[in-house]
Amino acid sequence: MLHNMQKKYIKEDPWSLIQEGWNAERVESSESLFSIGNGFIGQRANFEETYSGKTFQGSYVGGVYYPDKTRVGWWKNGYPEYFAKVLNAPNWIGLKVICNDEELDLNLAKEIINYRLELNMRAGWLNRSFEIILQNGSHLKINSRRFISLAIKELGAIKYDVQLINIDADVKIIPFVDADINNSDSNWDHKFWNIVGSKFQGNAAWIRTITNKTNFDVATFMDTKLILDSGDLVEKNQISGHKKVEHNYEFHLEKGQSATLIKFGGYVSSLNTPSDGIDQKVVSIISKANEIGFDALLNIQKKKWGDVWKMSDIQIEGDVSAQQGIRFNIFQLNQTYNGEDYRLNIGPKGFTGEKYGGGTYWDTEAYCLPFYMVTKNQEVALNLLRYRYQHLEKAKENAIKLGFNTGAALYPMVTMNGEECHNEWEITFEEIHRNGAISYAIFNYTRYTGDTKYLFNEGIEVLIAVARFWVQRVHFSKVKNQYVILGVTGPNEYENNVNNNWYTNFIAKWCMSYALETLDNLKQINKEGFEDIKEKLLFTDAESEKMKNVSENIYLPYDSERDIFLQQDLFLDKEIAPASSLKPDERPINQNWSWDRILRSCYIKQADVLQGMYLFEDQFTKAELERNFEFYEPLTVHESSLSPCVHSILASSLGRTEKAYSLYLRTSRLDIDDYNHEVEEGCHITSMAGTWLSIVEGFGGMRILNDRLSFNPKIPDNWKAYTFKVNFRNHILRVEVSKESTKFVLEKGNELELYLNGNLIQIESEARVLS
Amino acid sequence: MLHNMQKKYIKEDPWSLIQEGWNAERVESSESLFSIGNGFIGQRANFEETYSGKTFQGSYVGGVYYPDKTRVGWWKNGYPEYFAKVLNAPNWIGLKVICNDEELDLNLAKEIINYRLELNMRAGWLNRSFEIILQNGSHLKINSRRFISLAIKELGAIKYDVQLINIDADVKIIPFVDADINNSDSNWDHKFWNIVGSKFQGNAAWIRTITNKTNFDVATFMDTKLILDSGDLVEKNQISGHKKVEHNYEFHLEKGQSATLIKFGGYVSSLNTPSDGIDQKVVSIISKANEIGFDALLNIQKKKWGDVWKMSDIQIEGDVSAQQGIRFNIFQLNQTYNGEDYRLNIGPKGFTGEKYGGGTYWDTEAYCLPFYMVTKNQEVALNLLRYRYQHLEKAKENAIKLGFNTGAALYPMVTMNGEECHNEWEITFEEIHRNGAISYAIFNYTRYTGDTKYLFNEGIEVLIAVARFWVQRVHFSKVKNQYVILGVTGPNEYENNVNNNWYTNFIAKWCMSYALETLDNLKQINKEGFEDIKEKLLFTDAESEKMKNVSENIYLPYDSERDIFLQQDLFLDKEIAPASSLKPDERPINQNWSWDRILRSCYIKQADVLQGMYLFEDQFTKAELERNFEFYEPLTVHESSLSPCVHSILASSLGRTEKAYSLYLRTSRLDIDDYNHEVEEGCHITSMAGTWLSIVEGFGGMRILNDRLSFNPKIPDNWKAYTFKVNFRNHILRVEVSKESTKFVLEKGNELELYLNGNLIQIESEARVLS
Repeated sequence: MLHNMQKKYIKEDPWSLIQEGWNAERVESSESLFSIGNGFIGQRANFEETYSGKTFQGSYVGGVYYPDKTRVGWWKNGYPEYFAKVLNAPNWIGLKVICNDEELDLNLAKEIINYRLELNMRAGWLNRSFEIILQNGSHLKINSRRFISLAIKELGAIKYDVQLINIDADVKIIPFVDADINNSDSNWDHKFWNIVGSKFQGNAAWIRTITNKTNFDVATFMDTKLILDSGDLVEKNQISGHKKVEHNYEFHLEKGQSATLIKFGGYVSSLNTPSDGIDQKVVSIISKANEIGFDALLNIQKKKWGDVWKMSDIQIEGDVSAQQGIRFNIFQLNQTYNGEDYRLNIGPKGFTGEKYGGGTYWDTEAYCLPFYMVTKNQEVALNLLRYRYQHLEKAKENAIKLGFNTGAALYPMVTMNGEECHNEWEITFEEIHRNGAISYAIFNYTRYTGDTKYLFNEGIEVLIAVARFWVQRVHFSKVKNQYVILGVTGPNEYENNVNNNWYTNFIAKWCMSYALETLDNLKQINKEGFEDIKEKLLFTDAESEKMKNVSENIYLPYDSERDIFLQQDLFLDKEIAPASSLKPDERPINQNWSWDRILRSCYIKQADVLQGMYLFEDQFTKAELERNFEFYEPLTVHESSLSPCVHSILASSLGRTEKAYSLYLRTSRLDIDDYNHEVEEGCHITSMAGTWLSIVEGFGGMRILNDRLSFNPKIPDNWKAYTFKVNFRNHILRVEVSKESTKFVLEKGNELELYLNGNLIQIESEARVLS
Repeated sequence: MLHNMQKKYIKEDPWSLIQEGWNAERVESSESLFSIGNGFIGQRANFEETYSGKTFQGSYVGGVYYPDKTRVGWWKNGYPEYFAKVLNAPNWIGLKVICNDEELDLNLAKEIINYRLELNMRAGWLNRSFEIILQNGSHLKINSRRFISLAIKELGAIKYDVQLINIDADVKIIPFVDADINNSDSNWDHKFWNIVGSKFQGNAAWIRTITNKTNFDVATFMDTKLILDSGDLVEKNQISGHKKVEHNYEFHLEKGQSATLIKFGGYVSSLNTPSDGIDQKVVSIISKANEIGFDALLNIQKKKWGDVWKMSDIQIEGDVSAQQGIRFNIFQLNQTYNGEDYRLNIGPKGFTGEKYGGGTYWDTEAYCLPFYMVTKNQEVALNLLRYRYQHLEKAKENAIKLGFNTGAALYPMVTMNGEECHNEWEITFEEIHRNGAISYAIFNYTRYTGDTKYLFNEGIEVLIAVARFWVQRVHFSKVKNQYVILGVTGPNEYENNVNNNWYTNFIAKWCMSYALETLDNLKQINKEGFEDIKEKLLFTDAESEKMKNVSENIYLPYDSERDIFLQQDLFLDKEIAPASSLKPDERPINQNWSWDRILRSCYIKQADVLQGMYLFEDQFTKAELERNFEFYEPLTVHESSLSPCVHSILASSLGRTEKAYSLYLRTSRLDIDDYNHEVEEGCHITSMAGTWLSIVEGFGGMRILNDRLSFNPKIPDNWKAYTFKVNFRNHILRVEVSKESTKFVLEKGNELELYLNGNLIQIESEARVLS
């Protein structure tokens, strides 16, 4: 009951997240939900002023990490020695407000009135306003507006207004940069940051810090000015400590008057600026920010976000809740990754938390790639592929470490710089299906864009290295007279160390066959390039034969009685009962059951066989999909954020629109409604791409068919219409689906042949087709 | 090569471990091998004087532990919050020797001459002698003799001689007690000991410490005197710090003269003495020690060890290496556990190290019980059973925590006080066969002693609680139409989370059937007792029926082609190749292969199917045993110390005496020859009982048959004869096996019927039977 009440604390609104009313219990949840970022830097929605209540402070610089020494209960051979983790960076947003000697602190207030938090997704800013009565009786009104600039990637800005309501007072406002940051998740109490020094210059001040071991050099800066109603600027004192630099503004304000602090801040790091140019870069950013000014920057921000929305927005008519959900997902994805830098990627929590160390998972390839591919230009998706190509040598080293021969690659389960940084044997060593997703992404990109340049150059090296891994990873079973894959964990992490996980075997088979097919294709179109790659990779005809043999003779578990694929060899030895038969107090089972009990149950954390049928849908009949969906979906507890979306898409594909809709709601409002009781740890960023897929591939039924776009639109009962856009091979296509019709508008490009419900149609500029 | 050379650093000797010559690399290994203890307290063979080189300091008080907070990489539901671990206790042996202002330290010596270490197992003392030339040129001769008293359980004693060889000198000898002890394995840098205070009284001094959380109150004491050649005593100063108490002896010695420090020391703990009586107890022990004196105590020690050897010695003629090996094993077992206190048990490292936290494993029931049962009186074995009975309620709580219903018990994988303190899901939650060993020990004790009193009182409660666990732990497989046990780790820990581990299923079946059989037997002989127990345990006829049904219909994997039992459902999907085909540099595989590679290989860490056939040998034919041995033994890498002994016994049983002998050597000299390259961590105490079994059950072929002893003696080629004794139902039987004959001598008791090679014979007082 409590949960349901709490769910409603975010107001429904098509373009904003709004919280009205103070709730100390929800501070950390809101810090996650209202996070802001620009793909390079990002931060939780922590308060600027001092807050002594429960808070989870987080500010992050993309690509800046620390290799923490692994700490496990029981060491297993093969574990990585280090676990790279995203760093909590020095704080540039902080300030103190002191009114007649009492510091403003929401946790210690006598009264809080009209507390309101708004994340305006259309314009890309965060606003927090409230009135507060201090213990000394002072009544103040505060408004804070903050954004992380899309225009200047190192920059954030705050406009912080303080107004006196009932008294005259001596006021101090002390903005600061604080580099005294601990990572509470340090395994061995190591320090992650070394402080190098601080500097004051004009209205600016900054602290230079260097990460231990990785030597990332980061300047955290601020530039402040304080303006009174009169338009007068207040003079400041500068206070410099070893770990903190402050500007101290002291002034007298009369009842009704207000003061406004403009604070620019952010990070310049050696990731993009050579160390000896960092100070200069800080100065130039600050100078540019001042030149443009806060209000103009805010306008630019709105325009920039407008550009993003223009392409990536999905409009849903008739369902504000669903509308808010999808926009929140699209907004967060764009805050997390913008595709401009191939060294960056998408952590499961983005810039909204630290869980999972901020590393990259197979989520990127399996879920996120399509979103960026369809809503951005081709270069962005390409950067996601390049991210893995740059890590190919590390993936090969990883395979060697685990006993494989030279040339085979096992991509890490979690990574920052290409090295594995996960340490749980059943995942690190066994959840190897991730390797398949790396190859699949290359296939998916090529299929969608029609661009084979990447495939035949960098891509093919990845495909062969991955295929080689599979050739070595199989065993020949005399009992089955086929190749088997023993000891794996499939996408369903509620089974560990199983034999012949269908998904893993299927994607392994596909990886080998796709690598061979790609080589064949290259041979057809570019014999020389083909010979070059064979020579470079020492790929022989004998190896090709062996790979073909393994691929063609891999065992795929199957139950003839039910005519379904088997999640793993012994799945049917389990007691099969639908998840709906679980008692409510047993769910989620991962919080209520011991691990062994989960493992020997039939319950599935996230799509497994169905994940494979989703990725390779065209290899199966609708009837096959139907049977497997019918068997597996009822056993699925969806305790991974990545689960509902896949099922929603498949349900749409099977015409089960009602089921698809209920699963869609679960994925799109997962964080806003806090289904998993954990949003305070951060938002589920990567699964947000799954939400987008649930609409575009799910309800919209978008696929690539015969080198063309294909749609099979459905619409949930309570939606009037929905619209999305597709950037496809130099065309921009708007798709508007209503109950009666589907309308295509070509916003860019001339003519486009596409399939609608299986029929080839030609779009000149605009076409409306009745359903 | 290096390894083989190093192996020989312990001299072969029938009654002693002797190291001759200084070897800094071997200090930690010798500290393990030369450990001393008396079942209550024990310690590694650390040097008394300062040593700045690599050393692993360890002194332990049996039953005194600390519940360290669990630290794992990834938490799993069901993990215990605490991990009880044996504590490194304050040091009572320490002293400093300072000669003309230079401190004696073997690590900083100019030269070390005639270094010799002897552990005299017959008399129970440790002696260390050497000459040392300090950097200042002083040449000293040192002899230290030390023992932990069998007569006074809290007491240890040291006689430390210092002789000047080439100079006159000002000498300081400073014996101390040091409570500044860190446990380097603390998970969260917690302190384990609180220091309460120190006290000086006469020649004695002690420090009182209390363990955090568990509140064990321990006094660590010393009593010293320093005697010159002249017989004069040297006066001392007392120095007291917060964490250390010292006696400071300063004196002048001339060339050729010597000084002798007599130091008594040890521990009095609240485990056996109420807190307010501890000081008094310290005083009375010291007074008693002084009354008897060092030399007389040493004589008593020899006599007490003589009593131990009288019953438990095994003599081997013609093979000094084997003789030294078995005596070392018997000696260490007796140092670790004496059966006088049912709250204590046998940690895998005893008092020789800290690995495995000093907790109790199934090793006790599966390997150690027979040794104590046969070489001690019945009460000792009974105390091992009582240890588990006192933990029954905790085992029930553990089962509830893992989702089982009231009344079922799952004994912990590792424990100190009955609570689980292991945290590796595939072991903690899945290596549940341990529960079977608990029941088996009751059966084994009853079979051997003929005493049913324990069985029908305490034992039956344990049997039912364990049987109930199995009834709940099975699943009914529709595919197999039988009960299956999913997701377990068998004794072979190189397979995890497998289905239907034959050993586990077999012992589960047996546990249920034995519990029911015991209830039936009780009903026959004591109807009222039967009704009482049913009522106490709420055991209904319906439950009995269900248990019977599960027991009779449990699936036991079997391969009809090879006519062998299958280690687990999918074992034959593995690639089968003998361990002999592994390259030498791959072994031990647990140090050279990644964990996943081990898991999907066919290699077996320790007996699994064969472990079951060993425990339940009479349920199988020799031909069955032969086939299974032939299949599994070649796949076994024996990387558990508990493996070779079981195979040695089975090989003997199959008449493969040569194989049995090679496996015997491996188990008996495992630590002395450091087969596993890890003796510096401590000795493998529990597997030492397996060594004893290899002779008595292996070569001697001792079994219980029709309520009588039975022997089928074999003798390895290079042994002339061997002799052991058996304490059986108020008889003491000496068994002497030579190539030509087997001789039985009844040292206690009148007449004994026994089987020799299947023939029933009667022993009056002595009998020799030609082979």
